[in-house]
Amino acid sequence: MAEVVEVRKNVLGKNDEIAAANREHLARLSVTALNFVSSPGAGKTSLLVRTLNDLKDEIRFAVIEGDQETDNDARRIAETGVPVTQINTISACHLDAQMVRGAFAEIPLQTVDTLLIENVGNLVCPASYDLGENMKVAVMSVTEGEDKPAKYPKMFRVSSALLITKADLLPHLDFDLPRAVEYARNVNPSLKIFTVSSRTGEGMEDWYGFIRAMRNAGQG
Amino acid sequence: MAEVVEVRKNVLGKNDEIAAANREHLARLSVTALNFVSSPGAGKTSLLVRTLNDLKDEIRFAVIEGDQETDNDARRIAETGVPVTQINTISACHLDAQMVRGAFAEIPLQTVDTLLIENVGNLVCPASYDLGENMKVAVMSVTEGEDKPAKYPKMFRVSSALLITKADLLPHLDFDLPRAVEYARNVNPSLKIFTVSSRTGEGMEDWYGFIRAMRNAGQG
Repeated sequence: MAEVVEVRKNVLGKNDEIAAANREHLARLSVTALNFVSSPGAGKTSLLVRTLNDLKDEIRFAVIEGDQETDNDARRIAETGVPVTQINTISACHLDAQMVRGAFAEIPLQTVDTLLIENVGNLVCPASYDLGENMKVAVMSVTEGEDKPAKYPKMFRVSSALLITKADLLPHLDFDLPRAVEYARNVNPSLKIFTVSSRTGEGMEDWYGFIRAMRNAGQG
Repeated sequence: MAEVVEVRKNVLGKNDEIAAANREHLARLSVTALNFVSSPGAGKTSLLVRTLNDLKDEIRFAVIEGDQETDNDARRIAETGVPVTQINTISACHLDAQMVRGAFAEIPLQTVDTLLIENVGNLVCPASYDLGENMKVAVMSVTEGEDKPAKYPKMFRVSSALLITKADLLPHLDFDLPRAVEYARNVNPSLKIFTVSSRTGEGMEDWYGFIRAMRNAGQG
């Protein structure tokens, strides 16, 4: 087992080097990058589609889509008219910094304010891989149960913001929202938390305020 | 990278040896073992709680709960009165055969018909780890989007049954059930598919018929 750990450390060390280079490259171009992480099916793509449609006239976006297989999500994003690149990770349960660097070649970063990276749906692996983003944004739907932050603490600890999605379903669920927020704050007291619905639009204005503030800070 | 692949192969080879021993041990005791795999929040624990409450007078169950952290799920299961053991995997995104073998010591397998193993919530890692179970049962909720089987095909390929959960929410969603079934069948034509709600009980009788048939086959 010692050997496995050693090899894994080297892989992560190499990843962190490339991530640092990505971060420097993005900063030089004044691009703010957000890395969206969640379980499969938490509603990341629907969230991005609504955000892009509502903000694309004021912020210049680009999107990197990570999935093990298919380009279904990239096709949904492409309908908004925002530039999008698909990465298929095949066996890997996360994006890594090298994959993202490869995608930079296909994106007109010089004309981008904010880069949205949708990671592979997984509450474990993506927590360990820095891509060079400014921050990780965790996404969790109200259908998942309140205690996900306690059960998968690393993901919520390394994220700077948490979007609680599908809020329009709350009347049909036993989901205890204050309890979910408490679980999240126990793991990470500084988490910015937004409760939203991509379908009805509720709560999205606060989230957009956050996106605008990040963009402005990135161009400081 | 070659070194990483080599080490990983050895880890998996060792896991398969222990899994084979687990399988033999369970068969000798006429125990049928089902390994439940899904995204976090798909409703595995609620499904098990309802199944146990409805069938515990006719089938002797035991449960192994896998989570990275917390024993929340084991405590929910314990309320049914069925014997349960919690495994915390900490950094690992899946159970492995060695962990399950360790749990056997804490379960009265001689008096068990059917062992339900709830894996860590993850649509990627658990697909690669045989635990010695008779079959994997994939669980996917109607809130997750229809195309999960296309995007995470391995998990649906290695499973023998698929439970589509939270069916009571269908009236409030745009989820296209026939399309989800088609995605699943494209990946694995022999999948047994059950659409259920642990809350209202709809569809559960068919699922119970399957559990009974598996138990009877295991004691053939």
